[in-house]
Amino acid sequence: MDPRPEIETREEVMFFDTDCGAVVHNLAYLRMIETCRTRLAALMGMDLREMSETQLFPVLTRTEIDYRCPARLGDKLVIRGTLAEVSRARFSCEFVMTREETPDVPLVTARQGLALVQMPEGRPVRLPAEWLEKWG
Amino acid sequence: MDPRPEIETREEVMFFDTDCGAVVHNLAYLRMIETCRTRLAALMGMDLREMSETQLFPVLTRTEIDYRCPARLGDKLVIRGTLAEVSRARFSCEFVMTREETPDVPLVTARQGLALVQMPEGRPVRLPAEWLEKWG
Amino acid sequence: MDPRPEIETREEVMFFDTDCGAVVHNLAYLRMIETCRTRLAALMGMDLREMSETQLFPVLTRTEIDYRCPARLGDKLVIRGTLAEVSRARFSCEFVMTREETPDVPLVTARQGLALVQMPEGRPVRLPAEWLEKWG
Amino acid sequence: MDPRPEIETREEVMFFDTDCGAVVHNLAYLRMIETCRTRLAALMGMDLREMSETQLFPVLTRTEIDYRCPARLGDKLVIRGTLAEVSRARFSCEFVMTREETPDVPLVTARQGLALVQMPEGRPVRLPAEWLEKWG
Repeated sequence: MDPRPEIETREEVMFFDTDCGAVVHNLAYLRMIETCRTRLAALMGMDLREMSETQLFPVLTRTEIDYRCPARLGDKLVIRGTLAEVSRARFSCEFVMTREETPDVPLVTARQGLALVQMPEGRPVRLPAEWLEKWG
Repeated sequence: MDPRPEIETREEVMFFDTDCGAVVHNLAYLRMIETCRTRLAALMGMDLREMSETQLFPVLTRTEIDYRCPARLGDKLVIRGTLAEVSRARFSCEFVMTREETPDVPLVTARQGLALVQMPEGRPVRLPAEWLEKWG
Repeated sequence: MDPRPEIETREEVMFFDTDCGAVVHNLAYLRMIETCRTRLAALMGMDLREMSETQLFPVLTRTEIDYRCPARLGDKLVIRGTLAEVSRARFSCEFVMTREETPDVPLVTARQGLALVQMPEGRPVRLPAEWLEKWG
Repeated sequence: MDPRPEIETREEVMFFDTDCGAVVHNLAYLRMIETCRTRLAALMGMDLREMSETQLFPVLTRTEIDYRCPARLGDKLVIRGTLAEVSRARFSCEFVMTREETPDVPLVTARQGLALVQMPEGRPVRLPAEWLEKWG
């Protein structure tokens, strides 16, 4: 088996990421995780523009997210995403978010389940056979 | 000519609307204005579900917005939207946002220009003839 | 024990809720759930404006959400939120989202864990004693 | 006078940036512009973390934005921001957004007015004297 795909993305906390508690809002972390997940998917061979043409999309079926420690305005965040599991019809990814300057303190950890879906019908599609071979 | 369509929508400021300056974030006002604009469009005969099927959408071409006085967490806001102008290919709407308890203090005022566009080609389409008659 | 607090909020799916897969985006469901959760908290005695002054906020510690069936532009959604569990330092809420016209088909189900936190220090605070009595 | 501060930021269009018209949603462009504006402000000496401590924030007073040509999923966008004008109490910035591959086709152009505001009072503050000297 090949090593599991893994990627790191970076974000700087903007005003629009924060709320009046002076910390990053829970929705903003999930937007950052989506950017990481999209780049992880690109690494696995799923290109955004191609998706846009074929209308074959990875669709989120489940999110589990733990908010452990808050980030604040101007923080430089690192989001590490890893392919965690692949079956015939589903795959899941794991994410750990840290501050650049404190790489050992997880701020947020998450796990997301996805399926491949043919839009606009919304029909689930088998994952590519080589995913199971390489990363199953 | 008929009286110009006009509508009022209401919002309560949530955490996700605010930023760490402890006031409503500029993007949140525009999301609230979009909800008002959508209900104004419904009043003019443009139904969201119908749009979804015909793929004929009112598309924003321009926004001018003045942020005059900030709203805060828990504020109850009133957004009043009015059809301001109709031509053959474009129309524009005006919005005034106030706090329920201070209806004479405008927090935000905005004007938006729109065109009717046939998606996915993105082809501009003439406005319905009766719009010009009724509100031109 | 008193019956558990429960509330229903309603949303109409707007353009900004959807993505190019023509369905509601996963972040939009969570924004709608936050509105429901905020009204549920109000019912339990936590008022937004009061929070804003005391800086004592309910803070999300965990979300589990299952995306079961997609909503689309113009759909009228009902979000039902229930207080699920109360302990000395934490509480959790459950949410079910359905379409008005198909109340038996859950689109999204979610469970969220929260703690009461004194900002800006971020210090966790005991829940009000009467919560445990009434709903523990 | 010094040359006006100018900066370029880059974004790749994600699912959360698009709507069911299959194009980038108007709010998403403004979020991207805010990221550009924040980096422009950093270049002018306004650091996010410092703001967070001093509570002296650049506050948006006005936006004018023209949506000229839509961007789509996976597009690589370039946002160029320039300081346009400085007076004693206000400054304004201009933004042009293009696709990497078609740098001569403006997708979105915008102008934003800002004031420097001491929070939480919301009191407007004079701009640093050297801004007027250098860029007035």
